[in-house]
Amino acid sequence: MATLSPSNDSRFGLARQIALPGPLKLDCGADLAPVEFAYETYGTLDASGSNAILICHALTLDQYVASTHPKTGKEGWWTRMVGQGKPIDPDRHFIICINVLGSCMGSSGPASLNPLNKTPYGMSFPVITIADMVRAQAMLLDHLNIRRLRAVVGGSMGGMQVLNWPSLFPERVESAIIIASTARHSAQNIAFHEVGRQAIMADPRWRSGDYYSVGDPPSAGLAVARMAAHITYLSEAGLTEKFGRRLQARDAKSFGFDADFQVESYLRHQGISFVERFDANSYLYITRAMDYFDLAEDHGGSLAAAFMKNKARFCVISFDTDWLYPTAESRNIVHALNAAGAEASFVELSSPFGHDAFLLDVPELNRVVDGFLRAMEA
Amino acid sequence: MATLSPSNDSRFGLARQIALPGPLKLDCGADLAPVEFAYETYGTLDASGSNAILICHALTLDQYVASTHPKTGKEGWWTRMVGQGKPIDPDRHFIICINVLGSCMGSSGPASLNPLNKTPYGMSFPVITIADMVRAQAMLLDHLNIRRLRAVVGGSMGGMQVLNWPSLFPERVESAIIIASTARHSAQNIAFHEVGRQAIMADPRWRSGDYYSVGDPPSAGLAVARMAAHITYLSEAGLTEKFGRRLQARDAKSFGFDADFQVESYLRHQGISFVERFDANSYLYITRAMDYFDLAEDHGGSLAAAFMKNKARFCVISFDTDWLYPTAESRNIVHALNAAGAEASFVELSSPFGHDAFLLDVPELNRVVDGFLRAMEA
Repeated sequence: MATLSPSNDSRFGLARQIALPGPLKLDCGADLAPVEFAYETYGTLDASGSNAILICHALTLDQYVASTHPKTGKEGWWTRMVGQGKPIDPDRHFIICINVLGSCMGSSGPASLNPLNKTPYGMSFPVITIADMVRAQAMLLDHLNIRRLRAVVGGSMGGMQVLNWPSLFPERVESAIIIASTARHSAQNIAFHEVGRQAIMADPRWRSGDYYSVGDPPSAGLAVARMAAHITYLSEAGLTEKFGRRLQARDAKSFGFDADFQVESYLRHQGISFVERFDANSYLYITRAMDYFDLAEDHGGSLAAAFMKNKARFCVISFDTDWLYPTAESRNIVHALNAAGAEASFVELSSPFGHDAFLLDVPELNRVVDGFLRAMEA
Repeated sequence: MATLSPSNDSRFGLARQIALPGPLKLDCGADLAPVEFAYETYGTLDASGSNAILICHALTLDQYVASTHPKTGKEGWWTRMVGQGKPIDPDRHFIICINVLGSCMGSSGPASLNPLNKTPYGMSFPVITIADMVRAQAMLLDHLNIRRLRAVVGGSMGGMQVLNWPSLFPERVESAIIIASTARHSAQNIAFHEVGRQAIMADPRWRSGDYYSVGDPPSAGLAVARMAAHITYLSEAGLTEKFGRRLQARDAKSFGFDADFQVESYLRHQGISFVERFDANSYLYITRAMDYFDLAEDHGGSLAAAFMKNKARFCVISFDTDWLYPTAESRNIVHALNAAGAEASFVELSSPFGHDAFLLDVPELNRVVDGFLRAMEA
């Protein structure tokens, strides 16, 4: 899985970072201006502008779909899906992924400077929604003169954005691929996020969000938030298979509070490595956006109503061991699409990996996405 | 559900708190001396000493099974099961519940004074196991001259102690009732506990466990730990039924970080009220004991071997919506009991409440326990 070089199509600039004047009207009523964007592109937009694919990323991911992450030095997070000879292929597609609004990898978020006082917004950044993320993406695509999208693709929170695209911009979306996602956050989903937010806000170094100038972020709280969330990304069976009750580099229990079990050590590592690449306030804002997400609620309580103006074909994919957004949630989406008369295919894939399956080695996922996209192009 | 008055049988003292000289030999190799016990009793031991029932409590519960909790003023935690006319009945049974070793309601734990320096143990308290808890209970029962137990009964961590009783003291146990429990902690169980421990230890007020003299305990970390754990006690469907996405005393989203959703407010309340009645170090020690629990491992990897000397009848009960200790875990226990030739009945009950069902209004649970105990007495 080779790391791709971002496209150097001069139309899209080499910096792949831009501030547009805005304003962006947000669901909370506030105007955001300017609006900063960081994005990656791969491949070349064809003459008719018909081969663009927008990839929407998940909560803690970023625009580095298939290129090296500048902070971690790791290869892109979806090189299994995006690359030469992969289902999403820079030889056939113009691929764009934009860091979501509220995040911390170059797009506007709580760590951005507030133009009014030239200091980081912190908690004065407006609370955003998934729809706001999508409207921001549309604003950048307008600027880049990308009018239509052959496909919008995303897993997890990416799938929530994908669901909003044909609802907000029905004329612009030809197809939508929603993987391991949901049309609304459940009480349990909200509960896990609330634990994470409370862990961050309980950390005295959070300082009500004003920690940027001190250079001493609430890493301990953010690590705990990540650990709690990470459990929900994995299946019980997957954890048992990967770790079971195996002890960590010792023959016997330590009778202490070090990481005795491998699963403890693994979780601690997940927490510690996360804080090196993510901003705690961004975690608060993006989880809030996810908890607020309820596409039916935005349409008078009817999910089908969200798709009434839709002209896209849909591909909905779930994983049988995903207990964060279980198959029933995908089935709800498909029922609504059917009720709205949309063309929709649905598949539940078998995988031991739980929710994280969309990022991992599930060959059947690639076959489904590849087949769907090739049918679009036929 | 009337609160019971503890029995004033003079043989058992009115104080229901005692320090025995010990030492208690612990699995970690340390000796604990003295060993403090706090316990509640209800009913009267009959002349032949044949009607004693030991109730083993869960992680954050206590000896106040059916009497008022002195800190919260709330009625006992199992008045649905224990009381006049209930399956466990002080008119028929002599009922005893002992605060577990490591806890904070009067039995020896990290908040107890270390006799060597007359200051609280803190993290110098030895790491304990479920078997240590059971050996401590046996030490107190010896002192009280209770030789045999008609039944040992417990849910969740209580069930782990129940499982250990006939394994450690086969001559003393006539029957064992194990509710919503497991014979070993899974990787996912350990992972959730590790999140809680990290939340506590990340709180600067934890002070490596030496917070007692400061009077400023790590409440924020403990509250987060409780919130994370609490989600695992409830079913997804139960949370949806109880809260769904209902907003908290407002008509619309606040676009802020207050508790917008009822489920957030509920979880925060769970965290805040917990810290008023529980010690953070006890939470560390008891979760560690649970994570170490693997009854098969203590018997050469064979769970059946744990029951080879057993003479008790078993009743194993699980709940269909319990995802913390799912029915498969109870079935493992029953298979091992069958393999060991033990008399065992097993039932999976249907309840919307998840793991917490054993504490809640599930009439069928009472019928099963009542029928089992009456058959013992016939």
